[in-house]
Amino acid sequence: MPDRSQFEVIKPEVRSASAYRLEHFAADVKLDQNENPYELPDELKQDVVNRVLRSQWGRYPEFVPERLIETLAHVTGWPNEGILVGNGSNELINAALTVTLHPASTIAIPQPTFTLYKLMSTTLGATVDDIYLNEHDMSFDVDALVSAARKADVLILCSPNNPTGSLLDRSGTERIIENARGLVILDEAYHEFSEQSALPLLERFNNLVLLRTFSKAMSLAGLRFGYLLTRPEIAAEINKARLPYSVNIFTLAAAQAVLEHTDVLNRAIRTLIDERERMLGELTGRPGVQVFPSRANFILIKTPHPARRVFDALYSEGILVRDVSRYPLLDRALRVSIGTPEENTRFLSALDRVLETLQ
Amino acid sequence: MPDRSQFEVIKPEVRSASAYRLEHFAADVKLDQNENPYELPDELKQDVVNRVLRSQWGRYPEFVPERLIETLAHVTGWPNEGILVGNGSNELINAALTVTLHPASTIAIPQPTFTLYKLMSTTLGATVDDIYLNEHDMSFDVDALVSAARKADVLILCSPNNPTGSLLDRSGTERIIENARGLVILDEAYHEFSEQSALPLLERFNNLVLLRTFSKAMSLAGLRFGYLLTRPEIAAEINKARLPYSVNIFTLAAAQAVLEHTDVLNRAIRTLIDERERMLGELTGRPGVQVFPSRANFILIKTPHPARRVFDALYSEGILVRDVSRYPLLDRALRVSIGTPEENTRFLSALDRVLETLQ
Repeated sequence: MPDRSQFEVIKPEVRSASAYRLEHFAADVKLDQNENPYELPDELKQDVVNRVLRSQWGRYPEFVPERLIETLAHVTGWPNEGILVGNGSNELINAALTVTLHPASTIAIPQPTFTLYKLMSTTLGATVDDIYLNEHDMSFDVDALVSAARKADVLILCSPNNPTGSLLDRSGTERIIENARGLVILDEAYHEFSEQSALPLLERFNNLVLLRTFSKAMSLAGLRFGYLLTRPEIAAEINKARLPYSVNIFTLAAAQAVLEHTDVLNRAIRTLIDERERMLGELTGRPGVQVFPSRANFILIKTPHPARRVFDALYSEGILVRDVSRYPLLDRALRVSIGTPEENTRFLSALDRVLETLQ
Repeated sequence: MPDRSQFEVIKPEVRSASAYRLEHFAADVKLDQNENPYELPDELKQDVVNRVLRSQWGRYPEFVPERLIETLAHVTGWPNEGILVGNGSNELINAALTVTLHPASTIAIPQPTFTLYKLMSTTLGATVDDIYLNEHDMSFDVDALVSAARKADVLILCSPNNPTGSLLDRSGTERIIENARGLVILDEAYHEFSEQSALPLLERFNNLVLLRTFSKAMSLAGLRFGYLLTRPEIAAEINKARLPYSVNIFTLAAAQAVLEHTDVLNRAIRTLIDERERMLGELTGRPGVQVFPSRANFILIKTPHPARRVFDALYSEGILVRDVSRYPLLDRALRVSIGTPEENTRFLSALDRVLETLQ
């Protein structure tokens, strides 16, 4: 057998990267994953299940799910040929990066943001240019992003941004895309909560890729569905790195059902937006709590205490939030998803008790 | 806006690659995707659906599906830490290639084989070393594979091989792995039909990665589930390129249910193996038909006619097979999945009529 040191076969950039990880905690009030707390109505779930029971599980899903893509085309006003569906938007982000990045590439990524962008880019060997948000309010540094976009092969940006909630406004978005040398990937995972989208820019810019997910506002995190919008020529290339049959028969049926019943979801989204505004108001008044503007279904806060201590104290009250203090710029920060009004109220009073105790 | 030619943002190796594609044809007798023609029993499907209806669709699946991995560990005798689950084995193959291949890498791939291996490798910029099967019987050229493995960073091999059915025997497998400089990825998508597996070699070789799927023998092609077995240190690295939550709640429930009811599947597999042997016997006697040895749930045949003509003629009789004549070495070849005894008999008589007509 040839001499083979333990990890020689694995690329060094992968060996030195940390895996994406989430510890599992059970809790009464789960505000850690930006999920929609409102389940789909039982009748709708039963309808999906009936469709699935009528189909053959031993047969592959459709190679191209025509009807679902038609429906997405109808909803977005974007042509079928420019739409790709995936097993969560993660799969499509990964495919978009795979067809563009190689070890000589540079990708610009705002920080802090969703950690997978950097992990995926590093795994592909690319150099990452971190563009920090403005620390005082976690807003995007548009000038810095414009400069970075002029040099980078790819720029990826999440707006509203996870885990800060920051929204990039229309003119900032346009300036960045206009100046970009390469592809601009815009992850709109939370767009329903910001009531703003870059969708109208797709026609104007041939280097824009938009991503959407059904895991947040659409209340289907357990099923994994996402889609991508871009001009057809780019979609055809990204499609080469997408895995065939990646969306299973259950998810196809559920995504279709949800798109046919958006009224139910719109009511839930309205409640979550109202609750976010209430929470922002309530938290802003709290002594010792620094609150950041959010247009998503979560809020970033900082307290005077180590985040882990606040996390633990909240958890002992049955409330699970996300400790994001390891992200750049986010020392002492926690991210709290917007739950039902009752859950949010429970969180607020628990936070009051915790902050009093820790003082 | 900077000057940006149409596809400048896409890597040249991706632009020049062809997408994986499958045309959709409806047919009475579907023998084109190596699916298991026997659906799971209705009670089992209903049981899965009940589990899913009891769970929350708006919440992410478990980060690590402990119970399912425990069950796989029990079934395979391999430790939990060396097992990864994925959205079909394709996802895991892609992850394994992503953490090992870069533009300076070489990967050895037998040809003809499952086309995704080469597409994925090319997309990652690697150089592909095609190692042709022995043309007269489509057996693996073990000596050539051993030489290639000495130089390649990765060798990927499907046994029984798709689309030929060729099985690599134990001693050949050992010789290749022993001599490999890098990782050996063995795709055992069809292993249940060959009654042979490299599972016992995992303990001996620290560079072996085994892949399994539930899309063939396990009759869950519509749900997409696969798993990977390797030593824990390698699994942890491959895991970095796997997407979080890639297996949804429906697939997790179905995979668990199937593993708890393997008796049903074992009967179907036994029938399919018997039918393959009957088909091999029947086809071998046919004038004008060249039949290749198969240990999978499909058979490769060549006829004196252009494959497309035979395909079309069979299709007009309601029978859908796969035209594989564009694969290297497979001019005039078709791949026929093993169906139910009735379906196989219909195929045989249709083939007789077609070959008579085309003469």
